[in-house]
Amino acid sequence: MRSASPAGVEGFLALREVIEEYLEGLRFTEEPALERLQEAMRYSLLAGGKRVRPLLCMESASLFGAPPERVLPSAAAIELIHTFSLIHDDLPAMDNDDFRRGKPTSHKKFGEAMAILAGDAFFGESLALITDHQEGSAEQVLAVVRELAHATGLAGLAGGQALDLEHTGRRAGPKELELTHHHKTGALIRASARIGAILAGAGEEGLEAISRYATELGLCFQIVDDVLDAVGSSERLGKRAGGDAERGKATFVSVFGLEGARREADAACERALRALGRLEGRDTSRLEALALFVRDRDR
Amino acid sequence: MRSASPAGVEGFLALREVIEEYLEGLRFTEEPALERLQEAMRYSLLAGGKRVRPLLCMESASLFGAPPERVLPSAAAIELIHTFSLIHDDLPAMDNDDFRRGKPTSHKKFGEAMAILAGDAFFGESLALITDHQEGSAEQVLAVVRELAHATGLAGLAGGQALDLEHTGRRAGPKELELTHHHKTGALIRASARIGAILAGAGEEGLEAISRYATELGLCFQIVDDVLDAVGSSERLGKRAGGDAERGKATFVSVFGLEGARREADAACERALRALGRLEGRDTSRLEALALFVRDRDR
Repeated sequence: MRSASPAGVEGFLALREVIEEYLEGLRFTEEPALERLQEAMRYSLLAGGKRVRPLLCMESASLFGAPPERVLPSAAAIELIHTFSLIHDDLPAMDNDDFRRGKPTSHKKFGEAMAILAGDAFFGESLALITDHQEGSAEQVLAVVRELAHATGLAGLAGGQALDLEHTGRRAGPKELELTHHHKTGALIRASARIGAILAGAGEEGLEAISRYATELGLCFQIVDDVLDAVGSSERLGKRAGGDAERGKATFVSVFGLEGARREADAACERALRALGRLEGRDTSRLEALALFVRDRDR
Repeated sequence: MRSASPAGVEGFLALREVIEEYLEGLRFTEEPALERLQEAMRYSLLAGGKRVRPLLCMESASLFGAPPERVLPSAAAIELIHTFSLIHDDLPAMDNDDFRRGKPTSHKKFGEAMAILAGDAFFGESLALITDHQEGSAEQVLAVVRELAHATGLAGLAGGQALDLEHTGRRAGPKELELTHHHKTGALIRASARIGAILAGAGEEGLEAISRYATELGLCFQIVDDVLDAVGSSERLGKRAGGDAERGKATFVSVFGLEGARREADAACERALRALGRLEGRDTSRLEALALFVRDRDR
């Protein structure tokens, strides 16, 4: 089986540094009385995420001929929204997780009220990043907002988390699992790729191909997540491993078994690579490397 | 002292029916597994709010020559965002309120997880209303999103609620109170008026005058809220009266006393009316009536 090319991996790891630096430079207020809220936001935002979504956004822009740095405000906005969803998912009323990425979760460190507010605040601030700082025509920037709207509402993050709670502790099959994943993880990952493409002025056909790639990448990402939760050590993951099974969560491992889930991840990765094949004449090497990297990661 | 003209009141009450009908017609999903989340959202959205923000948005559009119905998607989006903030503010970790508008709060009826998600989901859905349904140039619609971004992030709702929690149980003075109100209530009310004006193509000067009006109206609204909480009966308010004092909340009544607060409300209303005076040649009668109505309301 192929693995990610070193040059490709090096390429997107360099881009990840750019994202990290941009996120570190973000400040949301100069009001001293709001420093604690800002601290809570930055604590979760800078907790060492993998940055898959903003990377995908920037690589997608690059694929269609835009300098990836041009889409940084939107790429960062996507990571803010992702961070919001993690903070709220970890809350006691939701998944009740004490650790994430090896650190206490937001509500453990700042209290529940501040965690809820930090999540809420990311929404407005992510929009402000886009409306105040994203270059592009008004039509393009508005299209970015439209993508995020649908990736966060009932067809996206919020709906996905509701479905996840709905299926926890019940016997969920492949169909329910697919539906949950499509909303909870798939929609925002797909939007990330589309946003980069939209801002780079991709045509209908290119947008279609990159959406297909991102859909399969998102699926592969989620399956690997479930596999790692089932077999990984808590130390390497930075969060409690085996938590899914303990909670009776429907996962790709609980539905397909460990080997079955691995096969599903391989197949999704293959389909992602095939989607790239439709982008003739473009350099897809880094997106190829990203897909293989997502499949082969161990944390 | 002047009171609201019957014709003016009738005018905006008719508009309120239009808003109510539009909100009642909103559906966010056709996925059966998300029906419970949709139910929770509609429960809070249709719980009999006063609709001051969407009214203000529509009256502002009308003032600058647009048919008020044209801005309905944005006006409704504002009410969705307002509803999100009420649901989250009522949560046990926040204000821990069991009743609102005479009905059990969202978390009392649907559980805490669903209440958090219903709030979160309103965000994406409010954006979708705007990006999918709001008429206007891309520049105008993007400007609407920009207004909402700043009215919901740290300079708006989320920051305001953080300040409110910060000041609860401590000795807060007029300055802290003003800061909290400006973020928590003022920003979204101001944005409501500006959004209507922007979509109607108002010029810089008109936008300036309506912003000033809305700022004073928002202040008046908040002071009256605090007065009603201090003197009203729980039955008429539909929520626990006297809750602010019980919780040691900084309010206009705790800072200025009851009579002082009433004088502040009158003064803010007067300043709102004065701001309308700068809009020569336009029919400001309904916005005048709205300000007087807000000042004189008893629930």
